[in-house]
Amino acid sequence: MAHEAAIAELRALLGERLVTTRADLDLHGQNETYYPFTPPDAVAYPETTEEVSGIVKICNAHRCPIVPYGAASSLEGQHLAVQGGISLDMNRMNKVLAVNGEDLNVVVQPGITRIALNEELRATGLFFSVDPGANASVGGMAATRASGTTAVRYGTMRDNVLALEAVMADGTVIRCGSGARKSSTGYDLAHLLIGSEGTLGIITELTLRLHGIPEAVAAATCRFPTVEDAVNCVILTIQSGLPMARIELLDEMMVRAFKSYAKADLPEVPHLFLEFHGSEAGVAEQMEVFGELARDFGAEGWKTATSTEERNALWAMRHKSHYASAAFGKGGHTWPTDVCVPISRLAEAVHQAQRDAQELGLTSTIVGHVGDGNFHVALSVNPDNADEMERAEKFTSALAETGLRLGGTVSGEHGIGLGKQKFMAAEHGPALHFMRAIKTAFDPNNILNPGKILPPMN
Amino acid sequence: MAHEAAIAELRALLGERLVTTRADLDLHGQNETYYPFTPPDAVAYPETTEEVSGIVKICNAHRCPIVPYGAASSLEGQHLAVQGGISLDMNRMNKVLAVNGEDLNVVVQPGITRIALNEELRATGLFFSVDPGANASVGGMAATRASGTTAVRYGTMRDNVLALEAVMADGTVIRCGSGARKSSTGYDLAHLLIGSEGTLGIITELTLRLHGIPEAVAAATCRFPTVEDAVNCVILTIQSGLPMARIELLDEMMVRAFKSYAKADLPEVPHLFLEFHGSEAGVAEQMEVFGELARDFGAEGWKTATSTEERNALWAMRHKSHYASAAFGKGGHTWPTDVCVPISRLAEAVHQAQRDAQELGLTSTIVGHVGDGNFHVALSVNPDNADEMERAEKFTSALAETGLRLGGTVSGEHGIGLGKQKFMAAEHGPALHFMRAIKTAFDPNNILNPGKILPPMN
Repeated sequence: MAHEAAIAELRALLGERLVTTRADLDLHGQNETYYPFTPPDAVAYPETTEEVSGIVKICNAHRCPIVPYGAASSLEGQHLAVQGGISLDMNRMNKVLAVNGEDLNVVVQPGITRIALNEELRATGLFFSVDPGANASVGGMAATRASGTTAVRYGTMRDNVLALEAVMADGTVIRCGSGARKSSTGYDLAHLLIGSEGTLGIITELTLRLHGIPEAVAAATCRFPTVEDAVNCVILTIQSGLPMARIELLDEMMVRAFKSYAKADLPEVPHLFLEFHGSEAGVAEQMEVFGELARDFGAEGWKTATSTEERNALWAMRHKSHYASAAFGKGGHTWPTDVCVPISRLAEAVHQAQRDAQELGLTSTIVGHVGDGNFHVALSVNPDNADEMERAEKFTSALAETGLRLGGTVSGEHGIGLGKQKFMAAEHGPALHFMRAIKTAFDPNNILNPGKILPPMN
Repeated sequence: MAHEAAIAELRALLGERLVTTRADLDLHGQNETYYPFTPPDAVAYPETTEEVSGIVKICNAHRCPIVPYGAASSLEGQHLAVQGGISLDMNRMNKVLAVNGEDLNVVVQPGITRIALNEELRATGLFFSVDPGANASVGGMAATRASGTTAVRYGTMRDNVLALEAVMADGTVIRCGSGARKSSTGYDLAHLLIGSEGTLGIITELTLRLHGIPEAVAAATCRFPTVEDAVNCVILTIQSGLPMARIELLDEMMVRAFKSYAKADLPEVPHLFLEFHGSEAGVAEQMEVFGELARDFGAEGWKTATSTEERNALWAMRHKSHYASAAFGKGGHTWPTDVCVPISRLAEAVHQAQRDAQELGLTSTIVGHVGDGNFHVALSVNPDNADEMERAEKFTSALAETGLRLGGTVSGEHGIGLGKQKFMAAEHGPALHFMRAIKTAFDPNNILNPGKILPPMN
């Protein structure tokens, strides 16, 4: 067995919470997308920060890789132990430690999922806004700098993590940030760790911003003649400063996938799914302003959903896009990818993506957080079909190039993980050297999620 | 002359834009507060990023300190060349490079001031929101993670810098971030550089977020029986989710200082200065909701200012608080300090500050961005009065302790610079080690603004 000595010491520390049974290893080797099955050598289930620190110290002494694991909903293989070692399953560290309603924040352990957190907050009149679709763990969301449908109004994890505690590669426990809403006291380590995908430190506690549940919420859908019309409507909406809470694009293929997967009753043309938050009068005003804008772009079939049930049904369907896309094609799997561009270039980016997929003979759906200039393409693939996988790879590279050519980034929210390392040099140029310098300074033995984010040196 | 060899090489590179005349050195050695006069050995005036890179390479080869200099409005001595060397005056790099109105951003050089930038944007219907009071350079604002009166609504520099270009200690030019509104592609170097006070890299270009000038803007003032009443009103306002654009506290001493400095016609009791942004209907609704809240806390004397002239006069007065405070006391100088706490602890923090100042026999004014839990205390001091300076020092330490005790930070926006290094260990604990590791990795010869942020090792 690899890493035998480390595992023996971890067993002495954790007892039955260090697991090497086949079923558990297999579970931790799976992923939602097209990455190969990659079981770790052992799974550790810490219950406290001190235990995480102890585990990391053992791993560091033995040069044993350690890979944080939350809800395993990451889309670029971030949670896979590609160099073996320990899968650090954070699901037992899933408690709400303090609800500070007066300060609009909550202190949590990283293993709690966003839905569980919002259930715990239900009585407070407050909510945690970040909604990537999947019921991800908040620790994983911070580690991948997640965002999702509501980021256009309430920000991404970058904006919603006030403070965090992390265990560093030598076992040191650090705290970054505070309960204050802002600070200017030195280097922003919290934001360095957010988005570092477990390669610089292991997040063991988070202070998250909360928002007041708005007095009024209304969701709506409408359809457009073409994707260009829908996207141009979004561009003008954002430019006009309308405080959209959600503004999601579904292309015609995505609508078709929903129709077959969720029996959605929608015409097969591009749609926008919308949500408005505010006072009763404010929401009414926003809907009126948006409605006028949308009509100029040929919007029709305006449907509103004001009851909680109707709204939940709408967003539940939206959140199934990943599975709807997987079921839509023949391969049964999906290769999801995302890109984010300045909003003025969004129509061009979407159009290029549709054309590239068509030219490569790929079945693809597009769904997007278009208010941020961010959209997803889900390619339907069969991982056993080498030719199709090669075309999918080509598509992903072309999309990344499109993102960079239009002044954007190769990922708005999925992160780098395994799949996008090859674009790091093109996006970051000489800055990549300084990322490597931080990794070397923080984790000289390269035990923290090795093989992620930073491409191998040539 | 110190650093003679470096200066000779710099002169060869820059010609007349490398200056060693007494007047210029003296100008660059001054500061707005109580720090000693500290002239550099030479002043360099670069005009391009390439020149900055060339300057840094020369300085790095000669181990010559290099200290970025913008508007010199920093309040913790950030721009002072305390270890000698070169003052890098960025004021010639003050151009707007691109206004991307459709993407709500602008690309600028770091030397432009926030007021000059907003003048250039006047015709676009957009504005740059961050307003620290002083007419700071945007490069300096990014370097110190500035915020100010509008941060409660539009965020700090952290939230409003989309991308930047920086020259690193070895002369490498890096770009971090893009024109896209979000990204999850590796370590967030942009946010590591924001707030690093020139110690990790020299910012040579910034892409800043812009906001649409709201349809309606109204400013207002009202007075409260006590500071507690005013602060408790603020706390409830923020908790209720009212989207305040500005909400500023002035304690009774600050009002008195304004009366004598700006001939303000205000009763000598605590005031809130407010601003509301939105649609006509939205602003009216916000003012009504706020008015109701405020009445419950004894607010009286409600005055509104809707014309641009009236509003500008109000905020111009507010922005003179630094000079009003300096003129208020007998010493003619001010020792400004700030702290930021979770908003629920704001009343306690303000009360403690007032009590500490009184007990130490200090004349002090309080003005604050209270919607963020951030406030400033300006102590009136005479730098030649050693006893008074010692009491001011005691006060500042007590305020920092109060901030930390209440779960906040020792500075919301002034930064660390020289004056607050002694609190870094207390605030950051073991995280400080990782800040040092970054500094060492990025600037091994310690040439970039040495002696700032990180306290000396003992």
